[in-house]
Amino acid sequence: MSRVLNGKPGPSPTTRQAVLAALDVLGYERPGRPREAGAGLIGLITPELSNPIFPAMAQVIEQVLARHDYIPVLGTQTPGGSTEDELVEVFIDRGVTGIVFVSGLHADTTADHERYARISARGIPFVLIDGYSDRISAPFVSVDDEAAMRMAVDHLAQLGHERIGLAVGPARYVPAARKVTGFTEAMAARGLDGSDLVAHSLFTLEGGQTAASALLDKGCTAIICASDIMAFGAIRAARARGLDVPRDLSVVGFDDSPMTAFSDPPLTTLRKPVEAMGTAAVDALVDEINGNPAHRTEFVVQPELVLRGSTDRCRTA
Amino acid sequence: MSRVLNGKPGPSPTTRQAVLAALDVLGYERPGRPREAGAGLIGLITPELSNPIFPAMAQVIEQVLARHDYIPVLGTQTPGGSTEDELVEVFIDRGVTGIVFVSGLHADTTADHERYARISARGIPFVLIDGYSDRISAPFVSVDDEAAMRMAVDHLAQLGHERIGLAVGPARYVPAARKVTGFTEAMAARGLDGSDLVAHSLFTLEGGQTAASALLDKGCTAIICASDIMAFGAIRAARARGLDVPRDLSVVGFDDSPMTAFSDPPLTTLRKPVEAMGTAAVDALVDEINGNPAHRTEFVVQPELVLRGSTDRCRTA
Repeated sequence: MSRVLNGKPGPSPTTRQAVLAALDVLGYERPGRPREAGAGLIGLITPELSNPIFPAMAQVIEQVLARHDYIPVLGTQTPGGSTEDELVEVFIDRGVTGIVFVSGLHADTTADHERYARISARGIPFVLIDGYSDRISAPFVSVDDEAAMRMAVDHLAQLGHERIGLAVGPARYVPAARKVTGFTEAMAARGLDGSDLVAHSLFTLEGGQTAASALLDKGCTAIICASDIMAFGAIRAARARGLDVPRDLSVVGFDDSPMTAFSDPPLTTLRKPVEAMGTAAVDALVDEINGNPAHRTEFVVQPELVLRGSTDRCRTA
Repeated sequence: MSRVLNGKPGPSPTTRQAVLAALDVLGYERPGRPREAGAGLIGLITPELSNPIFPAMAQVIEQVLARHDYIPVLGTQTPGGSTEDELVEVFIDRGVTGIVFVSGLHADTTADHERYARISARGIPFVLIDGYSDRISAPFVSVDDEAAMRMAVDHLAQLGHERIGLAVGPARYVPAARKVTGFTEAMAARGLDGSDLVAHSLFTLEGGQTAASALLDKGCTAIICASDIMAFGAIRAARARGLDVPRDLSVVGFDDSPMTAFSDPPLTTLRKPVEAMGTAAVDALVDEINGNPAHRTEFVVQPELVLRGSTDRCRTA
């Protein structure tokens, strides 16, 4: 251990990391150690921090960057605050070696994607998480939204549900559009018609509540939500009508954000594999930085359906 | 609205902010607008992002900074990743105008506090949240931990509890030490002896579980936890023994972090007033930057006890 603390050669990077992490978790201050001057800075841009999946993703990316000896700096687009373009300018002005975009404007099909070409032209490598655009030449990392929808529809159909709804964000976002495609295809594969059971709303608790309310009006007995936050909104919408979850309405979340295991009811949800996604993104970025570019590759990572307590068999069929 | 979008003079900063926030919430891309070149950069350092109170605090600070036209950049100390000193170096190298520390080494009485004098000596104003040291000359913002303990003890005592325990982090942290003081004083004021009912552990879910388990062994019927995460650990410890919360054990959390309203049971908790704290911190920092220093002032913000479903009257008394 003392070799690790003194920064002498010897332990592997993994061992060093493990010892330092243990010190950090136990809350001990690390003794100063010589880090090479000017360690590379990586900018990380997320939409906001109030949805816990974004800090969770940021935390993983920061840990993987630290393993590569990069120092991560996070910029978030708080409502009314800095925009993605402003954060990019700040990062480039301040000499970042690369940028990781999480759910940025690249995911919005109506946004101007030329901005990314301008970043490339300035020689700054970057990688984009959740959202794909064939107009951007860079590595992408996404969760397989279509596979996720298939898992959720299959689970609910096996429980006897036929009126299954999808509560999802605005259609112009790639992950939302992919969920709609995956959902309608999975429903069709089961002989069910989901085309009328898609409710677009905002990515918020209130958005989930509004979308779920519309789907309940259409007689849905199960609702798949595009985020855990939206799922909590759906549960609230059900309870506002005196319905019990899961007895009267089954709800599936998306993300498996921290703390959902402690919710009432414990949320059945599609786990976004943040560890795998963060690792793939950083590995791709480091390859780009080291001159081994993997331009316009999309790494698609598989979700998992985590069964907890918010889904049950259909009782109205 | 078009005046706001085009950046022409006219609307007040508040109106401008509100319109831009509405666009952001609705997910519309803002048209480009001329921001003065070289807007000030403020570094924000938090311990980690996995406890949701830290991203919540960061989000508030970022919003208030944006209102002052500063661009916030966040550095977090992921376990095994960058240290506070490294993040400070990065921020200063990259030309920040000021730094906000959240629950940093200033809160650790065993840490070297000279590091802060060295930052002052380099002419960088900073402000420190949660943790006070009379060896650091800077503005501090804290929640009133002693008042919080008084509120929790009074609430539980009114419910008939006498064996009330405190599950808290390591004693060398100022907020932990203050909670212990507040707790034992509040217990004494009720004629109860709390001196033996303090369990120090880590600030994690597992830490809360371990501390709660020790307190259950001592016959506690109610446990006050130093964070919501620790409270979820306490609930888990109770359930592992076949106990129901709140029937057999009352649990009070701390922070009112996002999503605790949706937990099972909904968590009764001491709300950390992040909005007031973030605003006070940024205001103090902006004063420092503008040459109106408020050296070594501690702004103490009042918590609130939010009653939900994890406390009930004592049934074993």
